[in-house]
Amino acid sequence: MTPRTPCVDLNADLGESFGAWTMGDDEALLAIVGRANVACGFHAGDPLVMCRTVRRARERGVAIGAHPGFPDLQGFGRRRMDLEPEELQALLIVQIGALAGVCRAEGARLAHVKPHGALNNMACADEALARTVVQAVRAFDPALPLLAPACSALERAALALGQPVLREVFADRAYQDDGQLVPRREPGAVLHDPDEAVAHVLAMLQAGGLVTRGGRVLPTPIDSVCVHGDGPQAVQTARRLREALAQRGWLASAAGAVVA
Amino acid sequence: MTPRTPCVDLNADLGESFGAWTMGDDEALLAIVGRANVACGFHAGDPLVMCRTVRRARERGVAIGAHPGFPDLQGFGRRRMDLEPEELQALLIVQIGALAGVCRAEGARLAHVKPHGALNNMACADEALARTVVQAVRAFDPALPLLAPACSALERAALALGQPVLREVFADRAYQDDGQLVPRREPGAVLHDPDEAVAHVLAMLQAGGLVTRGGRVLPTPIDSVCVHGDGPQAVQTARRLREALAQRGWLASAAGAVVA
Amino acid sequence: MTPRTPCVDLNADLGESFGAWTMGDDEALLAIVGRANVACGFHAGDPLVMCRTVRRARERGVAIGAHPGFPDLQGFGRRRMDLEPEELQALLIVQIGALAGVCRAEGARLAHVKPHGALNNMACADEALARTVVQAVRAFDPALPLLAPACSALERAALALGQPVLREVFADRAYQDDGQLVPRREPGAVLHDPDEAVAHVLAMLQAGGLVTRGGRVLPTPIDSVCVHGDGPQAVQTARRLREALAQRGWLASAAGAVVA
Amino acid sequence: MTPRTPCVDLNADLGESFGAWTMGDDEALLAIVGRANVACGFHAGDPLVMCRTVRRARERGVAIGAHPGFPDLQGFGRRRMDLEPEELQALLIVQIGALAGVCRAEGARLAHVKPHGALNNMACADEALARTVVQAVRAFDPALPLLAPACSALERAALALGQPVLREVFADRAYQDDGQLVPRREPGAVLHDPDEAVAHVLAMLQAGGLVTRGGRVLPTPIDSVCVHGDGPQAVQTARRLREALAQRGWLASAAGAVVA
Repeated sequence: MTPRTPCVDLNADLGESFGAWTMGDDEALLAIVGRANVACGFHAGDPLVMCRTVRRARERGVAIGAHPGFPDLQGFGRRRMDLEPEELQALLIVQIGALAGVCRAEGARLAHVKPHGALNNMACADEALARTVVQAVRAFDPALPLLAPACSALERAALALGQPVLREVFADRAYQDDGQLVPRREPGAVLHDPDEAVAHVLAMLQAGGLVTRGGRVLPTPIDSVCVHGDGPQAVQTARRLREALAQRGWLASAAGAVVA
Repeated sequence: MTPRTPCVDLNADLGESFGAWTMGDDEALLAIVGRANVACGFHAGDPLVMCRTVRRARERGVAIGAHPGFPDLQGFGRRRMDLEPEELQALLIVQIGALAGVCRAEGARLAHVKPHGALNNMACADEALARTVVQAVRAFDPALPLLAPACSALERAALALGQPVLREVFADRAYQDDGQLVPRREPGAVLHDPDEAVAHVLAMLQAGGLVTRGGRVLPTPIDSVCVHGDGPQAVQTARRLREALAQRGWLASAAGAVVA
Repeated sequence: MTPRTPCVDLNADLGESFGAWTMGDDEALLAIVGRANVACGFHAGDPLVMCRTVRRARERGVAIGAHPGFPDLQGFGRRRMDLEPEELQALLIVQIGALAGVCRAEGARLAHVKPHGALNNMACADEALARTVVQAVRAFDPALPLLAPACSALERAALALGQPVLREVFADRAYQDDGQLVPRREPGAVLHDPDEAVAHVLAMLQAGGLVTRGGRVLPTPIDSVCVHGDGPQAVQTARRLREALAQRGWLASAAGAVVA
Repeated sequence: MTPRTPCVDLNADLGESFGAWTMGDDEALLAIVGRANVACGFHAGDPLVMCRTVRRARERGVAIGAHPGFPDLQGFGRRRMDLEPEELQALLIVQIGALAGVCRAEGARLAHVKPHGALNNMACADEALARTVVQAVRAFDPALPLLAPACSALERAALALGQPVLREVFADRAYQDDGQLVPRREPGAVLHDPDEAVAHVLAMLQAGGLVTRGGRVLPTPIDSVCVHGDGPQAVQTARRLREALAQRGWLASAAGAVVA
């Protein structure tokens, strides 16, 4: 792979409020990220939240992705569920379609799909499940990019099936030498210090690959960096990261450019 | 209005099963009707049922419509709810989008929208609500026909806003002189006898308008006849009606022709 | 009615979080109120939230009531629904039973029932609906007090059917001359100033009745004052009110005493 | 264990309808079984169905048990879910409490608890999960019997924790030599022939233990036989079994006697 100048956007999960319950600081994030993963009403979000989130993202020029999850509102899509492949595909198509419908009604364009929570975790480790997920996205639109963790089963399935894929890295998570995330229960799994998180991302972009806690570099294209909005520190990390990227000219100039 | 040869299809609600619960005889109806109103998962249906129903309808050449309802699974969308206009529009867009997504994934085309249950009843009588419904369909697609009862507020709102509209009459319901349905609690409201129902429909198509129980004719275009699949008698009525229409050359030859 | 020294507790809605979504400052309120209305999982709350809320209330010596609402999580039980009487009774019994089960498992006692949101509003104005609500509580336990707004149809239904009733007034709401709350859309409906709210409550307790914005006094027993926990100002009002009542010796000494 | 005359009742899952969807032939089963496992609204059933089912069971003198399941209506509680122990206990307590509340309102008595579907399957094989389930029942009422498959982890956990337990065998399922059910995918797992099923049960009661397909006898008390109501054949098997048991004097004379 020839060296190339890093060019990434930031992505974050948005539209996770539900009914009378608010979650996250969407407005703050919309000023920082270039790509929003919008919940589709099954693990979070509701029709009104979906419409308002898409509208605001469009107004701010933020690329809009569907963020489908398990049908488990109470568990926020974080509890593992066993679904038959046909059932899972239907679940994904309905959620992607719902958000695509909102985009259409709001004059926006659906730019990507990123699975949520337990579904994403499972699909990153299970090749068969990953294929099922990719096939669902593909059935909906073979040109719609999947936003997947770099070096995951999900990325591999997209490549194998010919679905466009955007690779993401995590700003605040350490990697094991095999490219998997260090489990949260282990010390050092989460980079709480904004400076450390920013340095981690810059190092990976510089190296052109995942930088593991063991000091290895796993070469991979990196298209997006996942940030979070829960808590003032997370927002601060995201903001600092954006500044650092912009300063170096590494921030994708517009969402459209990345997607094209 | 110049006289024209009647040309109608039959429509019925399909895909109303949910999870382990089966409802209706969809297979029987798919052999009879030319147009299916498919539940979108909020009052009935689930992702798997939606996908399978759309697939079967496409295979049988039956036109597929979204059949959105109130978010009330337990009440089957038959309980009245007060929603804010913005909330209702979001609810409709999400449901239409979900079914459109399923159509896309299954290689089918979304041919119309017909509101379900209490929402439909309310929108047929309330001009403001009718406009809200039409605006939601219009936001999704200004060319997507609304399937609405002839002489209803819903039909008038579609005409006023420029949304294409298909007028339906009911095979088994008597009309009042003002064009409203005779309430179910009144004697003679429902035509249980298949022969009577068929004769009723033929009379309306012949007359080019609603024929009320008082003997009046309210002129209106009629594009579709709503039939039901609950119970063997209902299916029999639908089958007889189809035969009677086909015999006279009044049955729309293909779903596409009606929609175009 | 012979004059008596005022003796009231404060009550507030608690346990309104759901899954990953937090609502309200339950810990702050548990240090202020003597009576908690705990959501039962249909409009807010979930099994885990119910158990934790009951446990904390028991630990703090706060009386625990069931706070049943419409089955409308997204609408937070604030959207009006039309339910058949038998359906509504079943809905109430299931919710009261669920919270009573939690109380039993946590070694607590169910002390009252207070309907939530749109259901409460409707039952305060509709005598037939009020009777349906009271009959459901009565079927569960004819000795379980209903916490109802003073001078409401709900209070009258409880009295007529022989169900124990606790009358509540609202700290931050103005009353019309007929005893109904001034609708929120009218100016002066909500008393935002903590001092004003406290003075309003003290005046009513002093007068032994509702004090309307027209200056009338509608005599009624007052057993409880409803306060809110949404926003720092509401908590401050609740705290000030508690202090003012304690100072005068008007605060019910223990939840048990009030209920007995 | 000294030999004793077999004395069993039949149990079946009831109240599994939901809203507009009907499931099972509850009326037929209520004339056959002595013990009903009533769904609690999370995987099946709704408040109205719960109330009506409990009322009919009480009228027919059938013992009423709570039949709690995973919060997965669409999956009918048959999809495995990973819940934290505290979450699972809360889920069980709420469901048991809800049905106990319905019993109270209907003048009936809650006679047992039997977990449903995937939860039951998991708790029969996983000792830690089994303890969690038993602890939840125990927290609600240490005298409430658990209805558990004979020779399961669930039975062992109840015995270990001192919770009363009723052992059930399945009329239409073959057993492996270790006491587990033969998986459904294997040939001979399900005894479709009513005569064969009846003979299987009689053989087990005669032998005082599970009779495996390998011909072994695993001694165990047997208190109840689980039958099903899905399909005319299942109802016929249940009816024949009842007759065979009554003929031999092995049918528990009244639900109360078994529970006491």
